[in-house]
Amino acid sequence: MKKENSAPTMKDVAREAGVALGTVSKVVNGLPVGDSYRLRVEDAIQKLNYQVNSYAQGLKANKTYTIALLIPNTIDPFYASLTYHINIALMKRKYRMLLCTTDFDPLLEQEYVTMAQHNKVDGIIGLTYNPNLIVEENTPFVAIDRSMGPKIPCVACDNFAGGQLAAEKLAELGCKNVAFLRSGSALVNEPNKRKSGFEAGCLSRGLSYEMKIINDGEPYEEFEYFLSEHISNGKLSFDGIFCVTDRLAYLVLHTLHKLNQQVPEDIQLIGFDGIRSFGNIDYHCSTIVQPVPEMAEMCVDLLLRENMMMKPPLVCLPVTYAYGRTTKEI
Amino acid sequence: MKKENSAPTMKDVAREAGVALGTVSKVVNGLPVGDSYRLRVEDAIQKLNYQVNSYAQGLKANKTYTIALLIPNTIDPFYASLTYHINIALMKRKYRMLLCTTDFDPLLEQEYVTMAQHNKVDGIIGLTYNPNLIVEENTPFVAIDRSMGPKIPCVACDNFAGGQLAAEKLAELGCKNVAFLRSGSALVNEPNKRKSGFEAGCLSRGLSYEMKIINDGEPYEEFEYFLSEHISNGKLSFDGIFCVTDRLAYLVLHTLHKLNQQVPEDIQLIGFDGIRSFGNIDYHCSTIVQPVPEMAEMCVDLLLRENMMMKPPLVCLPVTYAYGRTTKEI
Repeated sequence: MKKENSAPTMKDVAREAGVALGTVSKVVNGLPVGDSYRLRVEDAIQKLNYQVNSYAQGLKANKTYTIALLIPNTIDPFYASLTYHINIALMKRKYRMLLCTTDFDPLLEQEYVTMAQHNKVDGIIGLTYNPNLIVEENTPFVAIDRSMGPKIPCVACDNFAGGQLAAEKLAELGCKNVAFLRSGSALVNEPNKRKSGFEAGCLSRGLSYEMKIINDGEPYEEFEYFLSEHISNGKLSFDGIFCVTDRLAYLVLHTLHKLNQQVPEDIQLIGFDGIRSFGNIDYHCSTIVQPVPEMAEMCVDLLLRENMMMKPPLVCLPVTYAYGRTTKEI
Repeated sequence: MKKENSAPTMKDVAREAGVALGTVSKVVNGLPVGDSYRLRVEDAIQKLNYQVNSYAQGLKANKTYTIALLIPNTIDPFYASLTYHINIALMKRKYRMLLCTTDFDPLLEQEYVTMAQHNKVDGIIGLTYNPNLIVEENTPFVAIDRSMGPKIPCVACDNFAGGQLAAEKLAELGCKNVAFLRSGSALVNEPNKRKSGFEAGCLSRGLSYEMKIINDGEPYEEFEYFLSEHISNGKLSFDGIFCVTDRLAYLVLHTLHKLNQQVPEDIQLIGFDGIRSFGNIDYHCSTIVQPVPEMAEMCVDLLLRENMMMKPPLVCLPVTYAYGRTTKEI
């Protein structure tokens, strides 16, 4: 029954027609339903003067055709590229994208997730290193680079294979004694597999290696200290360095110049990500390239899949090597 | 009068009360309005059984608290930075941002503007070089970098002053004979004022100058040809070059190296935009820095102002010079 002073809702229609709410929703949204049910619903709609408009239709069916992207910022070129390609992938499917830059703020991240739970968006694609982020099981969510539980698919590049590829390239380019430099989150995450992959690659190729690992918040100077410690008679003991990101490789390149080391003649340097200057000119360094457009497509594809069984917990997409002047040309 | 078979709208209330639509909107949204008006509106609402609910309130009052950002992409670092800072400025005001990357596609741009006109967003901040884009007068719109008509505020950095500053810096740094290189849109737009500002600066400082201007679509090689034409006895006739963007300066720097010219010893180079590698490390070149966070704040502030009189047609924000190794240090 319609209450005094309020427009009839879909619930009122269901009560009047004596059917489930879902049945009304199906009729309103033009989905298949038995004819007798349809007629009862249509009668009730007419009797109550229930109004269907496109907005309400979207709201009641919990479809906003809007996805939120949770990303720390769009200043970092890897995040900027992900943002762009996810935007393209969503637009191709006539979805809109709310951009939610978080600067890694846990409160803001939780706020956006709650917004999704209130059905203001149909789902979330998120890159977050917040271990306390609570995502309800029925909120469609696809994580990038960090697994957030068995029910939430995670999309990443094949970081392990990327680390391995870096070791193999350095071996192929004649290196004998290499180093791995990493800064980043101490949390379990996909990019951290670059280290294990690199170790595996070094072992299989007989490369001797050292590692210098620092966590977020520790100063870059730790790497400068590590490198200068490994110089004797003006020469660095390494002939190859793999850096966990292109950004780190860029900083290390400057440090090596300061230490009078020649790149790539004496030391070859490989980064990770595949960042180009100004977004599309040349690589900052020789690098393991993440397949960003493919990762973006995969995120959107997984998010919009209806069948949970078809949502694997981890999808890793293949990386490639690109020459960027900090290694010898093969 | 309420039509058969349709819920009363705010328009019906306005007609019934004999007031303007805006007055009804104010009453519904709790904004100040004269008491006699308020009573008439409240009577009409009661008489028509007009329903205000929070969704409808948002919809009817044309408030979605969502703004669309129209931007070519987030790959270009200037666009990426604008996107980030506009996102921050909107979030501070509890607004959400739909990201609409357009790749300069006129059809897509028009589609987004039409979406705004259908009240799916409260307004648009747009960076577009589409001269045929039709924006209805009552659609809140703030343009970046290109004026789109007297009723649409345009936000830009002070491009003229930036060009002037580049000329003054080159003069101060000892240059006598300089060049201006520009590629970009042939449309009237704010960044094109960099040229006039540079000319004015050269004239006031007594610098002799040449210009090479190409439009979008013409190949970069035109600049290589121009520069090599100005070499005699291995020496370039210019001792300073101002490039319309950092991106162009970056390409020109490579060309100068190819032509065996020393930067900054023989030729000093200034770009425009203030782009840093990886978003926040060092400047690619000495540059005129656009105040992106302030431009973003201004866009949002202008867009959300209710009073059209307080929306000036053009707002130019001050630029600064930053040293980036392609000029001599002062």
